[in-house]
Amino acid sequence: MNAEIIAIGSELLTPERTDTNSLWLTAQLNELGIEVTQKLIVGDDRDRLATAIAASLGRVPLLILTGGLGPTEDDVTRDAVAQALQRRLLFSQTICDEIDARFARAGRKMAEINKRQAFVVEGADKLSNPNGTAPGLWLDVPGGMLMLLPGPPREMMPMFSDLCLPLLRARVPQLAIRKRFFRVAGMGESDLDALIAPIYKPYTNPVTTILAAEGDVQIHLRARCESEEAAETLVEELGGKILATLGARVYSLNGDPLETVVGHILRDRKETLAVAESCTGGMLGARITDVPGSSAWFLGGFQVYAAEMKARLLGLDQKTLDEHGAVSEAVAKAMADSTRDRTGATYALSITGEAGPESQTPGIEPGAVWIGLATPSGVDAKMFRFFSGRNRVRKMAVQTALNLLRFRLS
Amino acid sequence: MNAEIIAIGSELLTPERTDTNSLWLTAQLNELGIEVTQKLIVGDDRDRLATAIAASLGRVPLLILTGGLGPTEDDVTRDAVAQALQRRLLFSQTICDEIDARFARAGRKMAEINKRQAFVVEGADKLSNPNGTAPGLWLDVPGGMLMLLPGPPREMMPMFSDLCLPLLRARVPQLAIRKRFFRVAGMGESDLDALIAPIYKPYTNPVTTILAAEGDVQIHLRARCESEEAAETLVEELGGKILATLGARVYSLNGDPLETVVGHILRDRKETLAVAESCTGGMLGARITDVPGSSAWFLGGFQVYAAEMKARLLGLDQKTLDEHGAVSEAVAKAMADSTRDRTGATYALSITGEAGPESQTPGIEPGAVWIGLATPSGVDAKMFRFFSGRNRVRKMAVQTALNLLRFRLS
Repeated sequence: MNAEIIAIGSELLTPERTDTNSLWLTAQLNELGIEVTQKLIVGDDRDRLATAIAASLGRVPLLILTGGLGPTEDDVTRDAVAQALQRRLLFSQTICDEIDARFARAGRKMAEINKRQAFVVEGADKLSNPNGTAPGLWLDVPGGMLMLLPGPPREMMPMFSDLCLPLLRARVPQLAIRKRFFRVAGMGESDLDALIAPIYKPYTNPVTTILAAEGDVQIHLRARCESEEAAETLVEELGGKILATLGARVYSLNGDPLETVVGHILRDRKETLAVAESCTGGMLGARITDVPGSSAWFLGGFQVYAAEMKARLLGLDQKTLDEHGAVSEAVAKAMADSTRDRTGATYALSITGEAGPESQTPGIEPGAVWIGLATPSGVDAKMFRFFSGRNRVRKMAVQTALNLLRFRLS
Repeated sequence: MNAEIIAIGSELLTPERTDTNSLWLTAQLNELGIEVTQKLIVGDDRDRLATAIAASLGRVPLLILTGGLGPTEDDVTRDAVAQALQRRLLFSQTICDEIDARFARAGRKMAEINKRQAFVVEGADKLSNPNGTAPGLWLDVPGGMLMLLPGPPREMMPMFSDLCLPLLRARVPQLAIRKRFFRVAGMGESDLDALIAPIYKPYTNPVTTILAAEGDVQIHLRARCESEEAAETLVEELGGKILATLGARVYSLNGDPLETVVGHILRDRKETLAVAESCTGGMLGARITDVPGSSAWFLGGFQVYAAEMKARLLGLDQKTLDEHGAVSEAVAKAMADSTRDRTGATYALSITGEAGPESQTPGIEPGAVWIGLATPSGVDAKMFRFFSGRNRVRKMAVQTALNLLRFRLS
């Protein structure tokens, strides 16, 4: 079954805020096997909203509206729904009394304006709101369902969980869901997609979603079937084919990020890592220590950003620096070697490169990065060329360094 | 003038992600006096998208589409626009050659699949993309304008700023706009708002917007008037009152972040900074070196994450560590002192704390952080207590360290 969500409120059309209720609602709906196919954000405009509601009900059997149930003139959701469905709005004395009682409990008198919240679209069922004055509404319409929920998350969420979910469960045939979450490093999204699209495209079930960040591609598979077993079989079959094709480029079978995967291997082996960072200035260490418990395997290291620090903190030979330049194989190796030596770590990663935007090193283009890795059996370094700006170059360097270590460990 | 924005991509309909490009775009459009009246998120579905585009162009004279310009089968924006406008898609050899050249510069061969990105909707003008392979498109349609922008922000933003804004400015009647952008460190959003709300609330022009991140509050003022002078007078009047109230808590009068402000002072004085990071693991150095040119004043430092590194890399006395513990005034001072000494920097900042979620140090609660500062006239350290999780504690520690240095420098 497909659903659409409309978030209502002019504040959601400013540069500072947007709808986030739909993220939580989508998670709830997906669990029921319902897919969200479209999300809309509209302001406090009755005609525009009524048009959107009518169009949406023509497309999908389930429409969820959030917001616009307050007591002010700006709150137009009830009116817009009545207009879209060509139904009347009826005053409910019961709801009015409940709102009144709610104010009384707070030692206040209900304002006249709150009576707006006691109007109900003809044929709707009230959804009680223990956390606010605005009741929600549930409407069965020809060919579908429509629910009106309040905008504040602490009112919307319990109303949906406690009242709407049971109603939905009773009406939506339930399917079993099984998922896979793989992560890949060392290849771009389009190269990866060229490889695996022929594999996953023939499958409409499982659904495959691919998400990409700097040097990191996520592959999500989700199968929905009558039985757990059938869903598991499907997700295992497609997942197996994808894994066989991608091989060692897949670093995570459960969604763990690269720093966690590397960390688990090191922790299990009781080995340790140290770093020496030039153009990344500390980003590699920052990312590693983002993981609680990383102190079990990460020792620390050196931020040798200024050229002179490579000599001063790591003891690099000034002649090596002068001869080869700071962005060079010799310096990357010496940085890793010295760091391993000075920290006593099992492994040391070094990063030295030109992050840009302009090159500070004659003959070195922005984006050129040497990454060194010192291990108990020696030291090695590789050159990479990253693109698209300082921030991305630095993130790619960090990701690539972690991936080099992963390959060494596996 | 009204505009609508459609964000395209099935990943934007998952519980994990949603459209955020539209926030930045809305800010840009508001600057031109254009209001966003509706925002839509649709998946990679050509028919659904084509229907939405046609409907939108019937409502507003300006439609912006983001995403779906990639090379895969899933990227359907070009096709959907052609379908909605009933125009043909034409292959552009020029664009194909540009994409080819981009791959060649990276030492790679263009995949066959990337040819999809060389198709242009009939009558569209190409918007060059220096930051990616997908060119954007600009279309003049009866009664309005339509632009197709790539989804990744680092491609979309420069394309909009450099190419679309000038075109829009030429077509939209302009009011004069004058702005102020202040930044405040060392106080929370609600404390700040309690202080200045009585000042800005009476003004509907300029519009005041307050945004908060970890330890950093932004104050944006925007006045729109017939003349530059009238707008400048308004923004100067309100800005002056706010500055008088906040005093030295305002660290930036032009929106520059704290690391840039501190860096400019150091650069002008020809002084330098080094760091020693324990619980932040490199975040302070990473943030500083995010600024191009920071090598003029930032030397580097030590990531002393594991306890033993404080002795091993910085030469701290094991007795001091044992007696006071790693999270202590004595250790923060010794870290800063030793770092200043070993790097030769004018100033050294040290951070040692418990980032959480669980305390590794007996008697120290998660969120407790000591920050040390060594200067030519001695060393000092202060204790802070941050809240709300590991990530926020670490970010607050970095921001607070930079702010301590700013106060010392001013």
